Amino acid sequence: MDGTTPQVPTPAVMAALAAYQPGRSLPQALYTSPEAFAADMAKIHRKHWLFAGYGFEIPNPGDWFVYTVAGSEIIFARGRDMKVRGFHNVCRHRGSRICLEGHGHSSVLACPYHKWTYALDGSLMLDTAKEFGVPKSELGLKQVAVADAGGLLFFSIAENPPDFSEAVETIGRKMKPHALHRVKIAHQAEYRVKANWKVVFENNRECYHCPTNHAEYNLTAYDVERDRAVMDPALLPAIEAIVAKANERFAALGYDTGDASSNMTGKNWRCHRTPLKEGFVTQSLDGKPVSRLMGDVKEWDSGTLRCTVFPNFWQHTNCDYACAARLTPISANETLVRGYWLVDKDAVEGKDYELPRLLEMWDATNSQDWVICENQQAGISSPAYEPGPYSTLRERNVAHFVDWYLGEMRG
Amino acid sequence: MDGTTPQVPTPAVMAALAAYQPGRSLPQALYTSPEAFAADMAKIHRKHWLFAGYGFEIPNPGDWFVYTVAGSEIIFARGRDMKVRGFHNVCRHRGSRICLEGHGHSSVLACPYHKWTYALDGSLMLDTAKEFGVPKSELGLKQVAVADAGGLLFFSIAENPPDFSEAVETIGRKMKPHALHRVKIAHQAEYRVKANWKVVFENNRECYHCPTNHAEYNLTAYDVERDRAVMDPALLPAIEAIVAKANERFAALGYDTGDASSNMTGKNWRCHRTPLKEGFVTQSLDGKPVSRLMGDVKEWDSGTLRCTVFPNFWQHTNCDYACAARLTPISANETLVRGYWLVDKDAVEGKDYELPRLLEMWDATNSQDWVICENQQAGISSPAYEPGPYSTLRERNVAHFVDWYLGEMRG
Amino acid sequence: MDGTTPQVPTPAVMAALAAYQPGRSLPQALYTSPEAFAADMAKIHRKHWLFAGYGFEIPNPGDWFVYTVAGSEIIFARGRDMKVRGFHNVCRHRGSRICLEGHGHSSVLACPYHKWTYALDGSLMLDTAKEFGVPKSELGLKQVAVADAGGLLFFSIAENPPDFSEAVETIGRKMKPHALHRVKIAHQAEYRVKANWKVVFENNRECYHCPTNHAEYNLTAYDVERDRAVMDPALLPAIEAIVAKANERFAALGYDTGDASSNMTGKNWRCHRTPLKEGFVTQSLDGKPVSRLMGDVKEWDSGTLRCTVFPNFWQHTNCDYACAARLTPISANETLVRGYWLVDKDAVEGKDYELPRLLEMWDATNSQDWVICENQQAGISSPAYEPGPYSTLRERNVAHFVDWYLGEMRG
Repeated sequence: MDGTTPQVPTPAVMAALAAYQPGRSLPQALYTSPEAFAADMAKIHRKHWLFAGYGFEIPNPGDWFVYTVAGSEIIFARGRDMKVRGFHNVCRHRGSRICLEGHGHSSVLACPYHKWTYALDGSLMLDTAKEFGVPKSELGLKQVAVADAGGLLFFSIAENPPDFSEAVETIGRKMKPHALHRVKIAHQAEYRVKANWKVVFENNRECYHCPTNHAEYNLTAYDVERDRAVMDPALLPAIEAIVAKANERFAALGYDTGDASSNMTGKNWRCHRTPLKEGFVTQSLDGKPVSRLMGDVKEWDSGTLRCTVFPNFWQHTNCDYACAARLTPISANETLVRGYWLVDKDAVEGKDYELPRLLEMWDATNSQDWVICENQQAGISSPAYEPGPYSTLRERNVAHFVDWYLGEMRG
Repeated sequence: MDGTTPQVPTPAVMAALAAYQPGRSLPQALYTSPEAFAADMAKIHRKHWLFAGYGFEIPNPGDWFVYTVAGSEIIFARGRDMKVRGFHNVCRHRGSRICLEGHGHSSVLACPYHKWTYALDGSLMLDTAKEFGVPKSELGLKQVAVADAGGLLFFSIAENPPDFSEAVETIGRKMKPHALHRVKIAHQAEYRVKANWKVVFENNRECYHCPTNHAEYNLTAYDVERDRAVMDPALLPAIEAIVAKANERFAALGYDTGDASSNMTGKNWRCHRTPLKEGFVTQSLDGKPVSRLMGDVKEWDSGTLRCTVFPNFWQHTNCDYACAARLTPISANETLVRGYWLVDKDAVEGKDYELPRLLEMWDATNSQDWVICENQQAGISSPAYEPGPYSTLRERNVAHFVDWYLGEMRG
Repeated sequence: MDGTTPQVPTPAVMAALAAYQPGRSLPQALYTSPEAFAADMAKIHRKHWLFAGYGFEIPNPGDWFVYTVAGSEIIFARGRDMKVRGFHNVCRHRGSRICLEGHGHSSVLACPYHKWTYALDGSLMLDTAKEFGVPKSELGLKQVAVADAGGLLFFSIAENPPDFSEAVETIGRKMKPHALHRVKIAHQAEYRVKANWKVVFENNRECYHCPTNHAEYNLTAYDVERDRAVMDPALLPAIEAIVAKANERFAALGYDTGDASSNMTGKNWRCHRTPLKEGFVTQSLDGKPVSRLMGDVKEWDSGTLRCTVFPNFWQHTNCDYACAARLTPISANETLVRGYWLVDKDAVEGKDYELPRLLEMWDATNSQDWVICENQQAGISSPAYEPGPYSTLRERNVAHFVDWYLGEMRG
C-alpha cells in the first residue's frame, strides 16, 4: 500500500448502492461504471472464493497453471507434498512475472529476469542478506488460500478469507460419485461477452427467458416444466411426482437426495441434485447418453448435479459428462467466460463420444445467453434505463443474487 | 437518476468556458477533454433538436429505424396513425435493447429477453400488476419528442425541448417543392472523422479554406466568388447582379426568395435558397444535371437550398439531388458523419443518374474536409495550441457558431 | 493555460513518491498509473533535454523532420542560416498541424488549412493586423530550444531549459572522431514495448540480467566480465589490465581516455569510452568489423563510446558503426523505441556491410530486453507487487537512475 489507493467504494458507488429499490434490477452505475467495477473487484472478487480450475489439470508435482482475475495473476502449482498452492506471479526482486505461459511443468519457479529461483512451496532459494540487505525468509512468493472441493480448485485472494468449509464439504461429498480426479477436459471454449459479470450471472439465475430463447435447452430441461408449475399450481402434482421418483432413485444409488426446486436462500453457493426430464438419462437433445459413464457412477441417469458458487462458477454434472463455466470480469462491460466440457478420463473421442454431440446443448445455450447479455448491457447503458421490477414468481433467484451482492457491497 | 451523476459542466470545463477570448477559436479543453465532451452532450445534444433521418425511410406503419447519439439509442417507428414516434430502445423490465438491427418492420415492439411486448405507440401489452407489482401503465416505453420538418425528422431527448416551431414551419415550407417524401437514398456513406464535432461543424461554416483545398467544389460553387467580393468590394456589383437575377427566378417559380449571403445571425438554424454559379443548373462539376428533376421541381436550376441545423445537420438541396450530412459525436476527438445523397423516388440508376457522377463533387469535398479536420484536431491537442484570431471578414459564421455554443454551455 | 490543467503531480502521485523506500524499486503507481505518467511528462520529458534525431537527417536548408513526444509534435527544420530550429507543429490561426509527414523539404512552412505561411525561422509571412486584429509579429510559430551535440540533436520543450552546456561540449568532443555529420542510417527499427519508460531505462542500466538473457551480447561485451569482477575482487587485476591497455590506446589515438566502470554519479548523462572484449575491434559476434571505418576514425578498435542521456537516449559508438535507441513514452505502460544503426556515409550495402550482420547483436539484445520489460511491467501491475531490494553491487546504476528520477519529481 503506497497511499495512492482511492477509497473503495467511491461516494458515487455508495450512492448507487443506496439508491437500490427492492425487487428491481440494480441501478445503472453498478452495471456500467468503472468505479463500480473497481468496487466489485475489491469487495467481491478479491474477497470471496473463486473457481480457478480443476485439480486434475495439474496431477504431478511441479505442474502448474496460471489464472488471472481482478488484476492478479495467480500460479497454481502442485508441490512435492501433492498439495496445490497458489502464488502471486510476481518476483520479489524487481516484480517480473515468473511463469510466462498459461500452464507448464518445472521443478522450481525461476524468474526469467535475474533468475531468482523459488521452490514449489514458494520459498526463495537464494541468499539475499548480504548483497540485497534483506533475508531470503522475507522474500518468498506471496500466497493465496486454496481449497479443493471434490476436485474443484477454489481460492481466495483475501488476507482473511471467509469461511468456506461447509461448501468444500458439501460439494466434495455430492461430487464424489463423479470422481473429478479421474476426468479430462474434452473441450474448452473461451467466450468474450460484452456485458457486466452480474448481467451474466443474473441471466444464469432464471429460466423465465428460456421458452423464447433456448430451443435446445427447452428440449432437454426439467426447468421449463417446473417454471410452468410455478405459474400454474394445477401442474404441481405432476412435477412433484417426478421429483419424488428421482429422489427415490438418488437414495437407492447412495447419493444425497436432491433439492428439486434448487432455490438458493441465505447462501452464496448451492450444490443440488435435480431430476432430468422424464425419459432422459443425461442433458442431451434426445435424452440418450453422449459419453461413457464418468467416475464411479454405476447407472445411467444420476440426475443433474447443479453446483453454483457466487461470483464466478457454475457446473452441471450428469452421469456421463459435466459442463461448467468460469466467469472472469474484464471491465464494467466485459466478461470472459471459459466453458469446460468434462468426460471420463478413459473416454475416447470418436468411440465413446463425439464432440459435436457432446457440445450441442450447452454451446448453443451459452451462445444464446451471451447475445441476450450483450443486448441487456447495451440497454442498461442508456441514460433512459431505470431498474425494472422482477417477477415475484419467476425471478426469485435473480433477486437472491442481487440481494447477496448488495449485502456484500454494503458490508 | 441514482445520485452518481457528477456535476456537468465540471469546474475544469467551466474554467475553459470562462477563459474564452472573443473573436478567437475555443480553448483547447473544449475540443479535447472527455469532461468537455460530456458537458457538450448534456447541454447541447441531449437538449437541442437533432436530425435523425428522413420520414420516407419508414413509410408504413410498423417501419422503424434506430439512431444512437449521446449514449441514447432511439427507435423511430411509424404508428398505425401514420405518426412517427421516438422511443428509447430500452425494455422497462430488465433494460434490454428491444430492436437489435438498424432498421426493420414489425407489428409490435417485442423485447428479445423475456418477450415483453409494446404496441407501436409504446404502451406495454402485458398485465404486470400481479406478477411484478407494478401496473402496466407505468411501464410503457420512454418517448422522445419528434418533429417532421418537410420530411426531415428531428428529435429532442430533453424533457422540455426548446421551441422548434419556427424552424419546422420555415424548413417545411422551403423544402416543399423538393417533396422529400417522394425521394430515395441513392447512396449513403459513413465517414469516421478523428476530430471533435465542433471542429467538423466549424469547418462547414466558412469557405476561407476552399480556394486552397477544394478543387471540385471551387469549380461549382458560388461561395468562392462571393468570398472574393467580401475581400474586394469592387467585385460586389457583379455578385449583386447574380443574386438579383436568381431571386427574380426563385420568385417566378413560386419559391421563397433567398438570402444569398446566407449569414446566420441569432439562430441555431437556417434555410436559405442561394444562387448557383452562373451557367450551372445544379452542383455538378460541369453545371449540367446529375439526375432527373426531383419532387415538384418543374425547371432546371432551383438554386441550392442550404439548410443547416446546429448541432448535427446540414443539407444542400438542388433541383435534381440533395446531399446531406448527419454528425454523431463519438468522443472528444471522434465524430461519425453519415453522408446522404437523395434523388427522386422514380430516378433509375444507370438511366437517370450514375453514382460516380452523383457523388463526385460532395464525396471529394467531404473527404478533403475530414483530412483538414483531423489535422486541426491533432494540432489543437498540442500543449502549444492557443486560440488564434478569426478573420473578421471570412470567418464570421464560425464566430457565430462558437458564440451560439458558448451561450448554450454557459446558460 | 486555460485554467483546466489539474495540479501535477496529483496528491496520489505525491503519496507514491513519498512512499519510496531507498534501495528498492519504485512504488507501483509510479510505473502504472496514468496520473504518474502525466506527472512524468510534466516534470521530466517536458523539462529536460530529449534526443530528437541526427543533424545529418536534415542536411540542407528547408529539410525538416517531425518528432512527437509528451503530447507535442515538434518540427525540426534547417534554416537558410544552416541552423536547426524546433517549432511546435501548430498553426497560430486555427491550430492545424502544418507538416503532415514525418519528414520532408519545403522552402517555407505552410499550413494546409488556410495557407498561413511561415518562413524557416518561424516568422509569419502574412499581414494579419487588419483582417485578424493581431499583428503578425505576435503570430510566429512557437519555438523549442535545440542543441547540437556532435551531430546529435537534443531539444527542450521547457520555457527555461536546464543548463545542458557541459553535456553538449563533452559529447561533442568525444563524438568528434566518429564524425556524425558524415554518417547515414543503415537501418531503423520501431519497437513498441508494453512497459513504462522507466522500466525500459532501468533495464538498460544494469547487466545483472545479461548472463541469463543475452547470449549474443554476452559473446561480445566486456560488461559481463567486469560484473564478475565486481562480485569477485580476485578477478579485478585482470580487468584493470584490460582497461589500462585500452586507455593507453585511446590516448595514443588522441581520444579522451575512458571511464571503464562507466558508473553514473551525480549527472543525468554520461559519455564514456570503454574497452571492448579482448580481441574484438567492434561489437560483433566474432569481434571482426561489420562495416568500414566511420568518419575520422583511423584504426580498427576505438573501444565503445557509450553515451546515455536521461530520459530518452543511449548510443553505443564503435569504430565502424553506432547503434542508438530513442525512447518515446506513449502511456504508463507503453513505450515506443526507435533503434538506429549508423554507418559511414560512403559505406555501401553488400560491399562494406551486410544488414543481417550489422544488426545481429543489437537487434537480438533489444528484442530480448523488450520481452523482459513487458513481463516486468505485467508483474509490477499486480496488487501483490511490492518494491524489491536492489543489489548493492550489480544494480547501482539502476539505483542512480531511480534517485535522479525521484529528485526531479520531488523538486
